[in-house]
Amino acid sequence: MRYSNLFTKTAKIAPADADSVNAKLLSQAGFIDKQMAGVYTYLTLGLQVLRKIEQIIREEMDKVGNEILLPVLVQKESWTKTKRHTIDILFHLQGWQDINLVLSPTHEEVVTPLMKKFIFSYKDLPKAIYQIQTKFRNEPRAKSGLLRGREFNMKDLYSFHTSEADLNIFYEKIIPYYFNIYERLGLKKLTLLTFASGGVFSKYSHEFQTLSEAGEDTIYICEKCSLAINKEIIKEQSCCPQCDNRHLQSKKAIEVGNIFKLGTRFSDVFDFKYMDKNGKENLVYMGSYGIGSSRLMGTLVEIFHDDQGIIWPESVAPFQVHLIGLDQTDKTVKKRIEAVYKKLLDNKIEVLYDDRKEVSAGVKFADADLIGIPWRIVISKKTKDKIEVKKRNKKETKLISYNEFYNLLR
Amino acid sequence: MRYSNLFTKTAKIAPADADSVNAKLLSQAGFIDKQMAGVYTYLTLGLQVLRKIEQIIREEMDKVGNEILLPVLVQKESWTKTKRHTIDILFHLQGWQDINLVLSPTHEEVVTPLMKKFIFSYKDLPKAIYQIQTKFRNEPRAKSGLLRGREFNMKDLYSFHTSEADLNIFYEKIIPYYFNIYERLGLKKLTLLTFASGGVFSKYSHEFQTLSEAGEDTIYICEKCSLAINKEIIKEQSCCPQCDNRHLQSKKAIEVGNIFKLGTRFSDVFDFKYMDKNGKENLVYMGSYGIGSSRLMGTLVEIFHDDQGIIWPESVAPFQVHLIGLDQTDKTVKKRIEAVYKKLLDNKIEVLYDDRKEVSAGVKFADADLIGIPWRIVISKKTKDKIEVKKRNKKETKLISYNEFYNLLR
Repeated sequence: MRYSNLFTKTAKIAPADADSVNAKLLSQAGFIDKQMAGVYTYLTLGLQVLRKIEQIIREEMDKVGNEILLPVLVQKESWTKTKRHTIDILFHLQGWQDINLVLSPTHEEVVTPLMKKFIFSYKDLPKAIYQIQTKFRNEPRAKSGLLRGREFNMKDLYSFHTSEADLNIFYEKIIPYYFNIYERLGLKKLTLLTFASGGVFSKYSHEFQTLSEAGEDTIYICEKCSLAINKEIIKEQSCCPQCDNRHLQSKKAIEVGNIFKLGTRFSDVFDFKYMDKNGKENLVYMGSYGIGSSRLMGTLVEIFHDDQGIIWPESVAPFQVHLIGLDQTDKTVKKRIEAVYKKLLDNKIEVLYDDRKEVSAGVKFADADLIGIPWRIVISKKTKDKIEVKKRNKKETKLISYNEFYNLLR
Repeated sequence: MRYSNLFTKTAKIAPADADSVNAKLLSQAGFIDKQMAGVYTYLTLGLQVLRKIEQIIREEMDKVGNEILLPVLVQKESWTKTKRHTIDILFHLQGWQDINLVLSPTHEEVVTPLMKKFIFSYKDLPKAIYQIQTKFRNEPRAKSGLLRGREFNMKDLYSFHTSEADLNIFYEKIIPYYFNIYERLGLKKLTLLTFASGGVFSKYSHEFQTLSEAGEDTIYICEKCSLAINKEIIKEQSCCPQCDNRHLQSKKAIEVGNIFKLGTRFSDVFDFKYMDKNGKENLVYMGSYGIGSSRLMGTLVEIFHDDQGIIWPESVAPFQVHLIGLDQTDKTVKKRIEAVYKKLLDNKIEVLYDDRKEVSAGVKFADADLIGIPWRIVISKKTKDKIEVKKRNKKETKLISYNEFYNLLR
């Protein structure tokens, strides 16, 4: 895409109210725009990144379940049934004929009655369905850019089982797929499976916590067995629950995923049963598995940036190549730039071509660093028939031919 | 995909409260599930169709603008400014610190202040941005399945111009892209550009109306010059506004798109100005251009169905091929079915393989007709080393080799 056709604008300084690295850099580089605290517009560059993150999540979740799309609007009645209608992050509204509604911040109240229409027998189980959707939470304190939003994007998967044992099997099975996602995003090394509170559902749940000073969670890591435990439960026990070691290291982290064993908590409320092999009715066991796609976008920026801007992993960068054209008034140079741009497009390489005439080379280089596309290439009078190539996360530049460059990309 | 892995269930009869052909068939065939009137879950098959419709819209809109994603939550204050806070289809809610919010049913109130941050000079114009998003309307009477929903999906594009003349040029330019969309969906022949009320914005707007008895609009078509006019404005004039002919034919139609010249109605409220060549400030001219992706899904079913079920156009069918495996207990047959299934997958052909063992051939055939995938192929003892091929919209079946079939698909 030509920069002149891209709806974006970089800013020399970040908005004064940006309270975190991700809010600052994503706003400054033209990826998002703040509507109000915790509510953002995704500009074209930001939407491209968000969709790529979602696609990675989708590809991994398709290995265990079917994608669907649940409604946001739900009768408050369903939440009253599960006694969750008083939780403070629920948005309430009234609709036609004075019906009381809420905006779903999570979908157990929707998915349980839905699945009841589809699952009758043990033959219909196990089943897993998921969705990737905009969610709404009336957060008292939205903060840290995309890390804690009021309107945000997430994937939620729900699983359904004949027994606790079968739920346990699925629960263990999904963990590696979560790590596939973090691996593909470049976050695996920093992301720890962490014991967390099970809430009212079960003894423990698990969170995936990415180590970062920007995180609002504190986790403890056992220096002996490497087990990670969320602070919220370590209070109850001062040593590692796995090896009894008392040397626990405290770290800040961002919760980038959470998996729950729900047991029969919801199937009980909605009388969701299946017929077993002996013709006996039993409650369905359930699990729920969340991952925040927009929070992951914020997390990536918290982790991958330097003083000049964002450094996107190749898997989610809005474009693979940032082509900077200089000396465009020189017809030979201009022709060469356009030819390389065309070649990249022909080879289906995602390229942002900074074709602006009214800005200086310095501005173009600064914008390239700010936006954070993995490969920066420059064509100018000086580069002659070569291309100057630089990786965003490296210092050195190289002069190489188009073919050499193309081979680097493959 | 194997039918046994697909989250779906067909029903012999439609839900009693389904009030239209699309609600009946889409529910019965397992594409959607009703949460409440006007609010639906998209099951896996339904979501596949919706995403394909959205992708067609996206490809056409990318030719004129940039995709972004605007927030759903917006301060009520913005709607008070434009004096639209009292319109009855707005959902109102309260958030943190008693802030008054609405769920955006359309985005002029969001996009105008947003663009004000990006457009300053005539050099920044014209500009067009669009989004594909879930929208919310507190409809007093939701009805006709996906045709009039309370939570629904649509594309809305907004354009920004230096002058009314430039707005007019863009307005004319976008019409053929709308028709490209209808063409790709198989609806072009039935869809008419129709004069409609401009509301408070301008004398006329234009709707795209697809002829269908299921439509809630009435349009008049001039028998002489073929101009189409919405009933809501023909009341004011009893003859064709183009050729003065008095013979107008009345037809029912579904509004599948709507384009508006907004003029300076919103830029005026938000003081959205640009600097012209002479350094003078002027209001920006705006247009808005909607198309309902979920309504299009309902429209397609209203148009393309028979007594047995849906007949999807190939461009949006959830799969291209519905493979029915029979006599699966015969090892040779089973092997042949699996081989063909694998070949189709290897060739990146979207195939739904009905591998169910517990249901009869009759049920499989009925389900194939109901679901409405373009190509039905059968492999059984009887078909030997051939494949029985039938198009959903044709009566005749043919016995052909795999290679012949593959060539048909290309």
